[in-house]
Amino acid sequence: MAETQPAPRDGAQRKQDALARLAEDVDLWVSTAGPDGEACLVPLSFVWHDSYLLAATRTGNPTTVNARRTGRATLALGHTRDVVLIEADADILPSDGLDAAEGEQFVAKLGWDPRGRESWSFLRFRPRTIRAWREVNEQQGRYLMTDGTWLV
Amino acid sequence: MAETQPAPRDGAQRKQDALARLAEDVDLWVSTAGPDGEACLVPLSFVWHDSYLLAATRTGNPTTVNARRTGRATLALGHTRDVVLIEADADILPSDGLDAAEGEQFVAKLGWDPRGRESWSFLRFRPRTIRAWREVNEQQGRYLMTDGTWLV
Repeated sequence: MAETQPAPRDGAQRKQDALARLAEDVDLWVSTAGPDGEACLVPLSFVWHDSYLLAATRTGNPTTVNARRTGRATLALGHTRDVVLIEADADILPSDGLDAAEGEQFVAKLGWDPRGRESWSFLRFRPRTIRAWREVNEQQGRYLMTDGTWLV
Repeated sequence: MAETQPAPRDGAQRKQDALARLAEDVDLWVSTAGPDGEACLVPLSFVWHDSYLLAATRTGNPTTVNARRTGRATLALGHTRDVVLIEADADILPSDGLDAAEGEQFVAKLGWDPRGRESWSFLRFRPRTIRAWREVNEQQGRYLMTDGTWLV
């Protein structure tokens, strides 16, 4: 497939594309590790708020339980040939735990309002590592953030 | 968004759609659990061979290492609003470990040939659980397979 691949993007372009995905995409994949070696993978809707992502799911769901125990999650935006892959620290907030700006942004973007709902929680994901690549020729230079700091 | 959702598919239709994805899709997401609570999530190309999926990646990659240790992986085909989600038993095969039919199918579909490559392995995923849904109105009836047995 090498002949069909566009030239690799530079770091600045990848960061711009990744930030656009964070601002505009509605859903992502959330992967968390269970206690017995199972991996949980679910799609969730999210908002990008300043420097972290916010999602909501049921408090009893494996995603919430795993993230609470491990404090971590791995997130994928985009599709398999245009990936933004994020290793994040994860915090669980009660359903009344957002501040006003966070809550308004969530409702305005996603069109539903889990604030204050019994048995729901918000998840806050703070990126530690962000990688972005499309095809094999973008494997090099895929790290955009390490240790929570943008490299570009 | 309720007014834009098509009517939920019945189980037979979901199975047919899931089998079409398994036959025709090129990539999937593979989620595995690391030893310290981190979750690994990567896109891989695959083939559906009879009753299991085959993928290939480097032997030293976290996906291979995790799957070898846990014997498990969670796979997602499709996108976040048309999900086929698979909990699978995972086996690691050496890069010369496919039989002829498996190898030929892999190369014919994916257009590259990791057979016999040093430091590469094949991963065989046998579904235990398969769920398929599009929007919220398909949450009910999403289980198509449990304990390795089709329900429909």
